[in-house]
Amino acid sequence: MNEQLFFAEYSGSKHIELDEQDSRHCYKVLRKKAGDTIQITDGKGNAIRGVLLETTPRRCVAEVREIVEMPLPAYTLSIGVGMPSHPQRLEWMLEKLTELNVTNIFLLKTERVQPLHYKQERLNKIIISAMKQSLQFYMPALEIEKPLSAFTDFFHTFKEDERQGLSGSCDKAAPALKTVFEKNKKNYFALIGPEGDFTESEERHISSSGFYPISLSNNRLRTETAAISIVNGIHLQQ
Amino acid sequence: MNEQLFFAEYSGSKHIELDEQDSRHCYKVLRKKAGDTIQITDGKGNAIRGVLLETTPRRCVAEVREIVEMPLPAYTLSIGVGMPSHPQRLEWMLEKLTELNVTNIFLLKTERVQPLHYKQERLNKIIISAMKQSLQFYMPALEIEKPLSAFTDFFHTFKEDERQGLSGSCDKAAPALKTVFEKNKKNYFALIGPEGDFTESEERHISSSGFYPISLSNNRLRTETAAISIVNGIHLQQ
Repeated sequence: MNEQLFFAEYSGSKHIELDEQDSRHCYKVLRKKAGDTIQITDGKGNAIRGVLLETTPRRCVAEVREIVEMPLPAYTLSIGVGMPSHPQRLEWMLEKLTELNVTNIFLLKTERVQPLHYKQERLNKIIISAMKQSLQFYMPALEIEKPLSAFTDFFHTFKEDERQGLSGSCDKAAPALKTVFEKNKKNYFALIGPEGDFTESEERHISSSGFYPISLSNNRLRTETAAISIVNGIHLQQ
Repeated sequence: MNEQLFFAEYSGSKHIELDEQDSRHCYKVLRKKAGDTIQITDGKGNAIRGVLLETTPRRCVAEVREIVEMPLPAYTLSIGVGMPSHPQRLEWMLEKLTELNVTNIFLLKTERVQPLHYKQERLNKIIISAMKQSLQFYMPALEIEKPLSAFTDFFHTFKEDERQGLSGSCDKAAPALKTVFEKNKKNYFALIGPEGDFTESEERHISSSGFYPISLSNNRLRTETAAISIVNGIHLQQ
């Protein structure tokens, strides 16, 4: 359980350098020294084994000894979700979606989304941190403040027989996920409305784009809870 | 989506009083006045319709007009989970478990649980707030700092043919939830280890108590994420 994965951008050179935060962790918490082996990912599927050459509290450099390209997941899972109105809920949602292994996250600016103050750099840090924590080698792509159509357009770039789109509905009469779920698709797409949900015209757009409405719970779920629920549900159905 | 549910303890009398926080919300945010109708739950399954007699920023009192006992859920879902080591993660987990409709939450003090500072009153407030938000009438029961055996003993108080116990395992070779899930049980029990997981002797105790180990993800999930995942998964399998 104490396995440790670092993150660093990798240009293909012989040396790889941890950023200041990872360097501090490597040096101060893990007390790694020159000669110790560490495992690094670039978030693009590479598992990089490096041997530390130099460790200081601000800068750790390793020599790259081995690069293994990790297999891609059997399917992609992309989610479009109305931006939560509270920065803390947004951050928490990104952490959990990353832990639960999504491929693409579109934060949607739909008609009922309230303006939200957030720092994009901080959101990226949260995603990287969750990726390392959950020992993953692929970093989810994050798209911020996109219109709903950006997500449905993205959905349509995938082959019709290889994709399934599912949209969380507040209508309790909508079918359950497991009853409409199609196994063995290569690409899954989940849509979750913001606080106050999608508008009727947005619902029509979603439905005509080929997304199935599904019911996730008998209770009223917050946006971030519904997002976690649908992603977790799709993985567990596989 | 703007439906509002208040919480108040109810003694059976003709009048019901909101606490200070709910009174403030009722008066200041919703601008309710004497004569307006509000919906209240006592967390014990009662949906109480009241007509406001008096509203002030600190105290709202309603006359009870109707009490409807809401149907019990078709099954109970109890979770025993190692206490997260971070108060914010603990609070967040309680909010989400409540939103996702659990019946009993045992926060377990297992061998690898770190001491944690928390305020019990605050935890209860979080649960009440999530219950109101998600429009539920039954409040999850919270048991704090219990040994693992308290949860397995509780499991054994239910009839063998009416219960199923499932334990989240870090072993990726463990079967998926859907392959061992038994439909139409009356009582489900989920177990999730703390950071660092259960010890081997704890694992033996869990297994000999009749819990099935299941794998929830290929990734390493944080305690609170695993707890949400297993609860959500059980509901979606039903």
